[in-house]
Amino acid sequence: MTEIRYWLDDFTPGRVFHHHAREITAAEIVSFALEFDPQPFHLSEEAGKASILGGLAASGWHSCALAMRMFFDTILQHAAGEGSPGVDVTEWRKPVLAGDRLGGAITVLEARPMRSRPGIGVVRLRHEITNQKGECVMVMEHPFMVRSREGAAA
Amino acid sequence: MTEIRYWLDDFTPGRVFHHHAREITAAEIVSFALEFDPQPFHLSEEAGKASILGGLAASGWHSCALAMRMFFDTILQHAAGEGSPGVDVTEWRKPVLAGDRLGGAITVLEARPMRSRPGIGVVRLRHEITNQKGECVMVMEHPFMVRSREGAAA
Repeated sequence: MTEIRYWLDDFTPGRVFHHHAREITAAEIVSFALEFDPQPFHLSEEAGKASILGGLAASGWHSCALAMRMFFDTILQHAAGEGSPGVDVTEWRKPVLAGDRLGGAITVLEARPMRSRPGIGVVRLRHEITNQKGECVMVMEHPFMVRSREGAAA
Repeated sequence: MTEIRYWLDDFTPGRVFHHHAREITAAEIVSFALEFDPQPFHLSEEAGKASILGGLAASGWHSCALAMRMFFDTILQHAAGEGSPGVDVTEWRKPVLAGDRLGGAITVLEARPMRSRPGIGVVRLRHEITNQKGECVMVMEHPFMVRSREGAAA
Protein backbone atom coordinates (compact mmCIF):
# COMPACT_ATOMS: atom_id res chain seq x y z
CA MET A 1 0.00 0.00 0.00
CA THR A 2 1.16 3.51 -0.73
CA GLU A 3 1.12 6.34 1.79
CA ILE A 4 -2.33 7.18 3.14
CA ARG A 5 -3.62 10.50 1.93
CA TYR A 6 -7.41 10.09 2.16
CA TRP A 7 -8.82 10.11 5.70
CA LEU A 8 -12.43 10.58 6.77
CA ASP A 9 -12.13 14.39 6.58
CA ASP A 10 -11.06 14.15 2.95
CA PHE A 11 -14.42 12.63 1.92
CA THR A 12 -16.45 15.84 1.82
CA PRO A 13 -19.94 15.46 0.34
CA GLY A 14 -19.91 16.46 -3.31
CA ARG A 15 -16.21 15.70 -3.84
CA VAL A 16 -15.60 13.84 -7.12
CA PHE A 17 -12.71 11.43 -7.75
CA HIS A 18 -12.08 10.83 -11.48
CA HIS A 19 -10.85 7.51 -12.88
CA HIS A 20 -8.21 7.00 -15.53
CA ALA A 21 -9.86 5.37 -18.55
CA ARG A 22 -8.99 1.78 -19.46
CA GLU A 23 -9.92 -0.53 -22.30
CA ILE A 24 -11.82 -3.77 -21.83
CA THR A 25 -10.73 -6.37 -24.40
CA ALA A 26 -12.56 -9.29 -26.00
CA ALA A 27 -10.07 -11.70 -24.40
CA GLU A 28 -10.77 -10.31 -20.92
CA ILE A 29 -14.53 -10.54 -21.46
CA VAL A 30 -14.39 -14.17 -22.61
CA SER A 31 -11.94 -15.20 -19.88
CA PHE A 32 -14.16 -13.78 -17.11
CA ALA A 33 -17.31 -15.26 -18.66
CA LEU A 34 -15.84 -18.76 -19.02
CA GLU A 35 -15.18 -18.81 -15.28
CA PHE A 36 -18.19 -16.98 -13.88
CA ASP A 37 -20.96 -16.23 -16.39
CA PRO A 38 -20.88 -18.44 -19.49
CA GLN A 39 -23.92 -17.03 -21.28
CA PRO A 40 -23.43 -17.06 -25.07
CA PHE A 41 -23.41 -13.25 -25.54
CA HIS A 42 -20.47 -13.03 -23.09
CA LEU A 43 -18.52 -15.69 -25.03
CA SER A 44 -18.68 -14.80 -28.73
CA GLU A 45 -19.12 -11.80 -30.99
CA GLU A 46 -21.65 -13.74 -33.09
CA ALA A 47 -23.91 -14.57 -30.14
CA GLY A 48 -23.54 -11.03 -28.83
CA LYS A 49 -24.57 -9.53 -32.18
CA ALA A 50 -27.59 -11.84 -32.29
CA SER A 51 -28.67 -10.68 -28.81
CA ILE A 52 -30.18 -7.45 -27.52
CA LEU A 53 -26.67 -6.48 -26.32
CA GLY A 54 -25.44 -5.87 -29.87
CA GLY A 55 -21.97 -7.41 -29.63
CA LEU A 56 -19.59 -9.37 -27.39
CA ALA A 57 -20.64 -7.92 -24.03
CA ALA A 58 -19.04 -8.14 -20.59
CA SER A 59 -20.85 -9.89 -17.75
CA GLY A 60 -22.38 -7.33 -15.41
CA TRP A 61 -20.22 -8.86 -12.68
CA HIS A 62 -17.14 -8.20 -14.80
CA SER A 63 -18.14 -4.53 -14.94
CA CYS A 64 -18.53 -4.56 -11.15
CA ALA A 65 -15.09 -6.12 -10.74
CA LEU A 66 -13.54 -3.49 -13.03
CA ALA A 67 -15.31 -0.74 -11.07
CA MET A 68 -13.75 -2.27 -7.94
CA ARG A 69 -10.30 -2.09 -9.57
CA MET A 70 -10.85 1.56 -10.55
CA PHE A 71 -12.03 2.28 -6.98
CA PHE A 72 -8.81 0.67 -5.69
CA ASP A 73 -6.57 2.58 -8.08
CA THR A 74 -8.27 5.96 -7.61
CA ILE A 75 -9.10 5.94 -3.89
CA LEU A 76 -8.66 2.75 -1.91
CA GLN A 77 -4.91 2.25 -2.20
CA HIS A 78 -4.45 5.76 -0.80
CA ALA A 79 -7.22 5.65 1.83
CA ALA A 80 -7.49 4.75 5.50
CA GLY A 81 -10.29 2.35 4.55
CA GLU A 82 -11.95 -0.13 6.87
CA GLY A 83 -14.04 -2.07 4.36
CA SER A 84 -17.58 -2.12 3.13
CA PRO A 85 -20.49 -4.30 4.31
CA GLY A 86 -22.16 -4.48 0.91
CA VAL A 87 -23.60 -2.58 -2.03
CA ASP A 88 -27.14 -1.27 -2.05
CA VAL A 89 -27.39 0.03 -5.61
CA THR A 90 -26.03 -1.86 -8.64
CA GLU A 91 -27.51 -0.84 -12.00
CA TRP A 92 -26.32 -2.16 -15.35
CA ARG A 93 -27.60 0.56 -17.68
CA LYS A 94 -25.90 -0.12 -21.02
CA PRO A 95 -23.97 -3.03 -22.51
CA VAL A 96 -20.20 -2.95 -22.00
CA LEU A 97 -18.75 -4.16 -25.30
CA ALA A 98 -15.32 -5.46 -26.32
CA GLY A 99 -13.02 -2.55 -27.09
CA ASP A 100 -14.92 -0.04 -24.94
CA ARG A 101 -12.83 2.42 -22.93
CA LEU A 102 -14.27 2.61 -19.41
CA GLY A 103 -13.76 5.53 -17.08
CA GLY A 104 -16.01 7.64 -14.91
CA ALA A 105 -15.91 8.92 -11.39
CA ILE A 106 -16.81 8.35 -7.76
CA THR A 107 -18.80 11.01 -5.94
CA VAL A 108 -19.03 11.37 -2.17
CA LEU A 109 -22.74 11.49 -1.27
CA GLU A 110 -22.43 11.81 2.50
CA ALA A 111 -20.02 11.26 5.39
CA ARG A 112 -20.67 10.87 9.11
CA PRO A 113 -18.84 9.57 12.18
CA MET A 114 -19.89 6.16 13.55
CA ARG A 115 -21.21 6.29 17.09
CA SER A 116 -20.38 2.64 17.66
CA ARG A 117 -16.76 2.92 16.49
CA PRO A 118 -14.97 6.11 17.60
CA GLY A 119 -12.33 7.29 15.14
CA ILE A 120 -14.17 5.74 12.18
CA GLY A 121 -16.77 7.22 9.88
CA VAL A 122 -19.11 5.96 7.20
CA VAL A 123 -18.83 7.54 3.77
CA ARG A 124 -21.45 6.90 1.11
CA LEU A 125 -20.00 6.64 -2.41
CA ARG A 126 -21.67 6.70 -5.82
CA HIS A 127 -19.77 5.15 -8.73
CA GLU A 128 -20.68 6.14 -12.27
CA ILE A 129 -18.85 4.13 -14.93
CA THR A 130 -18.88 5.65 -18.40
CA ASN A 131 -17.77 4.50 -21.86
CA GLN A 132 -15.87 6.32 -24.63
CA LYS A 133 -19.15 7.86 -25.86
CA GLY A 134 -19.77 9.44 -22.47
CA GLU A 135 -22.69 7.10 -21.78
CA CYS A 136 -23.19 5.93 -18.21
CA VAL A 137 -23.00 2.11 -18.39
CA MET A 138 -23.19 1.32 -14.66
CA VAL A 139 -24.02 2.89 -11.31
CA MET A 140 -23.16 1.56 -7.86
CA GLU A 141 -23.70 3.06 -4.42
CA HIS A 142 -22.37 1.72 -1.15
CA PRO A 143 -21.16 2.66 2.31
CA PHE A 144 -17.41 2.67 2.97
CA MET A 145 -15.81 2.89 6.41
CA VAL A 146 -12.82 5.23 6.79
CA ARG A 147 -10.61 6.13 9.77
CA SER A 148 -10.26 9.73 10.84
CA ARG A 149 -6.86 11.40 11.26
CA GLU A 150 -7.70 11.91 14.94
CA GLY A 151 -8.61 8.25 15.35
CA ALA A 152 -5.30 7.22 13.83
CA ALA A 153 -3.39 9.56 16.15
CA ALA A 154 -5.27 8.46 19.28
CA MET B 1 -27.42 -23.92 -23.64
CA THR B 2 -29.28 -27.01 -22.56
CA GLU B 3 -33.02 -27.54 -23.04
CA ILE B 4 -35.20 -24.93 -21.33
CA ARG B 5 -37.09 -26.28 -18.38
CA TYR B 6 -37.70 -23.15 -16.26
CA TRP B 7 -40.28 -20.73 -17.63
CA LEU B 8 -42.06 -17.91 -15.81
CA ASP B 9 -44.67 -20.29 -14.36
CA ASP B 10 -41.93 -22.38 -12.77
CA PHE B 11 -40.83 -19.50 -10.54
CA THR B 12 -43.51 -19.79 -7.89
CA PRO B 13 -42.99 -17.59 -4.82
CA GLY B 14 -41.35 -19.62 -2.07
CA ARG B 15 -39.71 -22.13 -4.42
CA VAL B 16 -36.11 -22.87 -3.43
CA PHE B 17 -33.34 -23.91 -5.85
CA HIS B 18 -30.36 -25.53 -4.09
CA HIS B 19 -26.76 -25.17 -5.27
CA HIS B 20 -24.14 -27.89 -5.47
CA ALA B 21 -21.32 -26.98 -3.06
CA ARG B 22 -17.93 -25.99 -4.48
CA GLU B 23 -14.57 -25.16 -2.94
CA ILE B 24 -12.87 -21.80 -3.31
CA THR B 25 -9.08 -22.19 -3.39
CA ALA B 26 -6.27 -19.87 -2.31
CA ALA B 27 -5.02 -19.74 -5.90
CA GLU B 28 -8.44 -18.61 -7.17
CA ILE B 29 -8.68 -15.93 -4.47
CA VAL B 30 -5.24 -14.50 -5.26
CA SER B 31 -5.77 -14.64 -9.02
CA PHE B 32 -9.05 -12.70 -8.83
CA ALA B 33 -7.58 -10.19 -6.35
CA LEU B 34 -4.48 -9.48 -8.46
CA GLU B 35 -6.73 -8.47 -11.33
CA PHE B 36 -9.59 -6.70 -9.58
CA ASP B 37 -9.06 -6.06 -5.85
CA PRO B 38 -5.40 -6.15 -4.77
CA GLN B 39 -5.89 -5.41 -1.09
CA PRO B 40 -3.31 -7.25 1.06
CA PHE B 41 -5.81 -9.54 2.85
CA HIS B 42 -6.98 -10.84 -0.57
CA LEU B 43 -3.37 -11.59 -1.61
CA SER B 44 -1.66 -13.44 1.25
CA GLU B 45 -2.47 -15.65 4.20
CA GLU B 46 -0.21 -13.57 6.44
CA ALA B 47 -1.95 -10.28 5.65
CA GLY B 48 -5.33 -11.98 5.98
CA LYS B 49 -4.49 -13.37 9.41
CA ALA B 50 -3.30 -9.93 10.52
CA SER B 51 -6.64 -8.40 9.41
CA ILE B 52 -10.14 -8.55 10.85
CA LEU B 53 -10.93 -11.19 8.17
CA GLY B 54 -8.82 -13.84 9.93
CA GLY B 55 -7.17 -15.44 6.88
CA LEU B 56 -6.71 -15.23 3.13
CA ALA B 57 -10.16 -13.91 2.19
CA ALA B 58 -11.90 -13.60 -1.16
CA SER B 59 -12.82 -10.18 -2.53
CA GLY B 60 -16.52 -9.54 -2.04
CA TRP B 61 -16.73 -9.21 -5.83
CA HIS B 62 -15.23 -12.67 -6.19
CA SER B 63 -18.03 -14.00 -3.98
CA CYS B 64 -20.54 -12.21 -6.22
CA ALA B 65 -18.96 -13.71 -9.33
CA LEU B 66 -19.10 -17.20 -7.80
CA ALA B 67 -22.75 -16.64 -6.84
CA MET B 68 -23.35 -15.70 -10.50
CA ARG B 69 -21.73 -18.97 -11.60
CA MET B 70 -23.88 -20.97 -9.16
CA PHE B 71 -26.97 -19.09 -10.44
CA PHE B 72 -25.97 -20.07 -13.99
CA ASP B 73 -25.37 -23.72 -13.13
CA THR B 74 -28.51 -24.13 -10.99
CA ILE B 75 -31.07 -22.02 -12.88
CA LEU B 76 -29.93 -19.82 -15.72
CA GLN B 77 -28.61 -22.43 -18.15
CA HIS B 78 -32.01 -24.13 -17.96
CA ALA B 79 -34.18 -20.97 -17.92
CA ALA B 80 -35.96 -18.83 -20.49
CA GLY B 81 -34.13 -15.84 -19.00
CA GLU B 82 -34.16 -12.34 -20.42
CA GLY B 83 -31.52 -10.74 -18.20
CA SER B 84 -31.40 -8.58 -15.13
CA PRO B 85 -31.14 -4.77 -14.89
CA GLY B 86 -29.13 -4.79 -11.67
CA VAL B 87 -28.92 -5.94 -8.07
CA ASP B 88 -30.57 -4.06 -5.23
CA VAL B 89 -29.28 -6.01 -2.24
CA THR B 90 -25.66 -7.17 -1.92
CA GLU B 91 -24.53 -7.98 1.63
CA TRP B 92 -21.15 -9.46 2.52
CA ARG B 93 -21.91 -10.94 5.94
CA LYS B 94 -18.90 -13.14 6.75
CA PRO B 95 -15.41 -13.54 5.30
CA VAL B 96 -15.05 -16.16 2.55
CA LEU B 97 -11.72 -17.88 3.28
CA ALA B 98 -9.42 -20.08 1.20
CA GLY B 99 -10.61 -23.69 1.37
CA ASP B 100 -14.21 -22.81 2.21
CA ARG B 101 -16.90 -24.89 0.51
CA LEU B 102 -19.60 -22.57 -0.77
CA GLY B 103 -23.16 -23.61 -1.44
CA GLY B 104 -26.57 -22.25 -0.56
CA ALA B 105 -29.77 -21.63 -2.41
CA ILE B 106 -31.87 -19.22 -4.42
CA THR B 107 -35.41 -18.48 -3.26
CA VAL B 108 -38.18 -17.01 -5.42
CA LEU B 109 -39.58 -13.99 -3.54
CA GLU B 110 -42.18 -12.92 -6.07
CA ALA B 111 -43.17 -13.22 -9.72
CA ARG B 112 -45.42 -11.06 -11.88
CA PRO B 113 -46.08 -10.46 -15.59
CA MET B 114 -44.65 -7.27 -17.14
CA ARG B 115 -47.29 -4.95 -18.52
CA SER B 116 -44.82 -3.35 -20.88
CA ARG B 117 -43.58 -6.65 -22.39
CA PRO B 118 -46.30 -9.26 -22.96
CA GLY B 119 -45.05 -12.83 -22.59
CA ILE B 120 -42.34 -11.81 -20.13
CA GLY B 121 -42.45 -11.61 -16.35
CA VAL B 122 -40.26 -10.27 -13.60
CA VAL B 123 -39.16 -12.70 -10.92
CA ARG B 124 -37.48 -11.46 -7.75
CA LEU B 125 -34.73 -13.80 -6.51
CA ARG B 126 -32.90 -13.96 -3.18
CA HIS B 127 -29.49 -15.66 -3.14
CA GLU B 128 -28.11 -16.95 0.14
CA ILE B 129 -24.55 -18.24 -0.11
CA THR B 130 -23.42 -20.44 2.77
CA ASN B 131 -20.13 -22.01 3.84
CA GLN B 132 -19.28 -25.49 5.15
CA LYS B 133 -20.27 -24.41 8.69
CA GLY B 134 -23.76 -23.47 7.51
CA GLU B 135 -23.05 -19.77 8.00
CA CYS B 136 -24.61 -17.35 5.53
CA VAL B 137 -21.66 -15.46 4.02
CA MET B 138 -23.51 -13.41 1.41
CA VAL B 139 -27.02 -12.33 0.41
CA MET B 140 -28.09 -10.85 -2.92
CA GLU B 141 -31.54 -9.89 -4.22
CA HIS B 142 -32.40 -8.86 -7.74
CA PRO B 143 -35.09 -8.91 -10.39
CA PHE B 144 -34.76 -11.39 -13.25
CA MET B 145 -36.82 -11.33 -16.43
CA VAL B 146 -38.21 -14.66 -17.69
CA ARG B 147 -40.36 -15.60 -20.70
CA SER B 148 -43.63 -17.41 -20.18
CA ARG B 149 -44.47 -20.65 -22.01
CA GLU B 150 -47.40 -18.86 -23.64
CA GLY B 151 -45.11 -16.03 -24.76
CA ALA B 152 -42.74 -18.52 -26.32
CA ALA B 153 -45.57 -20.31 -28.12
CA ALA B 154 -47.17 -17.10 -29.41
